[in-house]
Amino acid sequence: MKAAKLGHIHPTAIVSDRVTIFNNVTIGANTIIYDNVKIRDNVFIGPNSIIGEPLVGYYRDPNYVNPELVIGSNAIIRPGAFIYAGSTMGEDFQCGTNVTIREGTEIGRNCSVGTLCDIEGHCRMGDYVRLHSNVHIAQKTVLGNYVWIYPYTVFTNDMNPPSNDLVGATVEDFVVISTNVVVMAGVRIGKDALVSAMSFVRSDVPPESVVAGNPAKRVAHIRYMRSKDTGERLYPWRMRFDGRMPWESIGYHEWMKQQNAQGK
Amino acid sequence: MKAAKLGHIHPTAIVSDRVTIFNNVTIGANTIIYDNVKIRDNVFIGPNSIIGEPLVGYYRDPNYVNPELVIGSNAIIRPGAFIYAGSTMGEDFQCGTNVTIREGTEIGRNCSVGTLCDIEGHCRMGDYVRLHSNVHIAQKTVLGNYVWIYPYTVFTNDMNPPSNDLVGATVEDFVVISTNVVVMAGVRIGKDALVSAMSFVRSDVPPESVVAGNPAKRVAHIRYMRSKDTGERLYPWRMRFDGRMPWESIGYHEWMKQQNAQGK
Amino acid sequence: MKAAKLGHIHPTAIVSDRVTIFNNVTIGANTIIYDNVKIRDNVFIGPNSIIGEPLVGYYRDPNYVNPELVIGSNAIIRPGAFIYAGSTMGEDFQCGTNVTIREGTEIGRNCSVGTLCDIEGHCRMGDYVRLHSNVHIAQKTVLGNYVWIYPYTVFTNDMNPPSNDLVGATVEDFVVISTNVVVMAGVRIGKDALVSAMSFVRSDVPPESVVAGNPAKRVAHIRYMRSKDTGERLYPWRMRFDGRMPWESIGYHEWMKQQNAQGK
Repeated sequence: MKAAKLGHIHPTAIVSDRVTIFNNVTIGANTIIYDNVKIRDNVFIGPNSIIGEPLVGYYRDPNYVNPELVIGSNAIIRPGAFIYAGSTMGEDFQCGTNVTIREGTEIGRNCSVGTLCDIEGHCRMGDYVRLHSNVHIAQKTVLGNYVWIYPYTVFTNDMNPPSNDLVGATVEDFVVISTNVVVMAGVRIGKDALVSAMSFVRSDVPPESVVAGNPAKRVAHIRYMRSKDTGERLYPWRMRFDGRMPWESIGYHEWMKQQNAQGK
Repeated sequence: MKAAKLGHIHPTAIVSDRVTIFNNVTIGANTIIYDNVKIRDNVFIGPNSIIGEPLVGYYRDPNYVNPELVIGSNAIIRPGAFIYAGSTMGEDFQCGTNVTIREGTEIGRNCSVGTLCDIEGHCRMGDYVRLHSNVHIAQKTVLGNYVWIYPYTVFTNDMNPPSNDLVGATVEDFVVISTNVVVMAGVRIGKDALVSAMSFVRSDVPPESVVAGNPAKRVAHIRYMRSKDTGERLYPWRMRFDGRMPWESIGYHEWMKQQNAQGK
Repeated sequence: MKAAKLGHIHPTAIVSDRVTIFNNVTIGANTIIYDNVKIRDNVFIGPNSIIGEPLVGYYRDPNYVNPELVIGSNAIIRPGAFIYAGSTMGEDFQCGTNVTIREGTEIGRNCSVGTLCDIEGHCRMGDYVRLHSNVHIAQKTVLGNYVWIYPYTVFTNDMNPPSNDLVGATVEDFVVISTNVVVMAGVRIGKDALVSAMSFVRSDVPPESVVAGNPAKRVAHIRYMRSKDTGERLYPWRMRFDGRMPWESIGYHEWMKQQNAQGK
């Protein structure tokens, strides 16, 4: 017996009959799909996963209804995922093994969530966001488009712990946050900014700035960051990097021209 | 087929016949319960979990006996848990997805352990302790009551790594330890203290002090911490916060009066 | 029914018929073994694991062939493992619960990988390496022999994120890297060095040096590190510690003599 036959639901999978499954969907062995999950075309869900995990009301309220979870077309959800009910993942979503995504998470198109990420729910992520392994997204965090976040970076949301006044951080488009950074509740990180590894971001980061340290301080404008090897300007990174981006193979400028011509 | 019918053991669960199961216990699909697990009333154990995971002797010793694991009444154990044999969880325990709890862990009442926490065993936790996601509790750590610990905080226990002289840290009642803190082996953090995010706690923290930095230094008395919005005193937090605490809805002072009147 | 009967393949395990299984191999309940996995003698694989997880080509390429995964004799793979195809683990390998090991990982003999470690693949590890819980090994990292790495330490490989120019760090023999350290792409950490907790290693670390801080700076020669209790020299640690090392019970000097006598 195979663990997952592409385009099929494995006989050991446990799928609620209140699920909407579109065409060419694969569901791996031992995977559980709870009520009110909608799975669009060409989605692959690996084995040993939990999709539509019920919220806390399920345990005590006999009238509990699981909120809808929508998984966009072409998603690849690797094994061992824990995806709660009540979220939306846009098309072309991908994740590594062993991710947790809680309720109220709105994820745009072409996003990728790495191994062991923990998205705590009630948060938003734009399009083409890349979370590397083991990123922690606190509730109420808002990430823009084309944002990169590296391992062991943690977003927080409680200025006076413990409290019930949760305030998320906001990250604007094209921001890069490196490894093992803590981002304070309520902070705004401006467009194109670069946060160095092991920084503690306690106040707003202006657009196009490089910050570093504990507490994080502005150390440069991003245009001063140059390659040690070639001397080329490194940021904004969209001018030199196109891997799996919408401007892949044509470059950002050409793509923008096309977008503008199409009135987008 | 459902993944878990409340009050029932799922037919795909694998439950040793040397297990004691009280009333109204739910055991989810694909969950494995090893020998000598005792599960009290109204416990919910989610799918795809391992409960009573055997210790190392199991692999090589034919006479190995699994030590007892006790799960207190009303526990909610979310899916993907790895709970080793030889521990005790008090009543009203809750955990997020994908936790690991190793042998020799003694957990009090009303504790909550977040997603991806790793409790390394041979440690103690009082009552009403809250571990947020991804907290690492080293062996021999001792946590008091009403302690809050935030994501990516790590307790250590080896002053001279590698060695066999493991010494845990001690955390007194009502302490708050924020995100991404490292606590050195053997350190004591005094009652009501507040440890700021990204601190490295290398020496004892006096009660009621705020510490920050690497190495962590005393920056204030907790009574000087005030809300930016309202100016109210923030700490000790028990005077202003009661969520899921025993003084919920009556306040700490009133609750203490009642406790004293009852001679507690 | 038991979760794993030693020496047997559990009836709920899903094992490809293109797998090579040697003698006395245990495969736990609900575990999935994909094509081209070779499992040597006396291996234990716990329940709820994924072994030989397919690489990305599997999802779209009908001619995809899973690369070989070799698990050396006497391995203990605890439950909830996610081990991708295309790696090699030497004999006497052990891991904690819930590890991820991706493709192209070459692991030597007697290594141990802790709970929740994430080995990102395309990397090498010598013999007798010990990764404690929750260590992140980036692609292209090279670890020597007898290396110890403590929780929440992260290796990085991209000097100018995001880019495709990944450069791993190199860690020489006998190095100890403490808790919550970030190691920059391309850095070399010299033999016998000791990296303190919460350091950010941005440049090469000379052999036998102690480094600390952000950025990490040399603070001492390892020979100056002495026990607070006994005054004994602590490093190189191999002179005082032998737990599960090849010089166990005879000491490093005596073992080296024997090795030299055998012309090794």
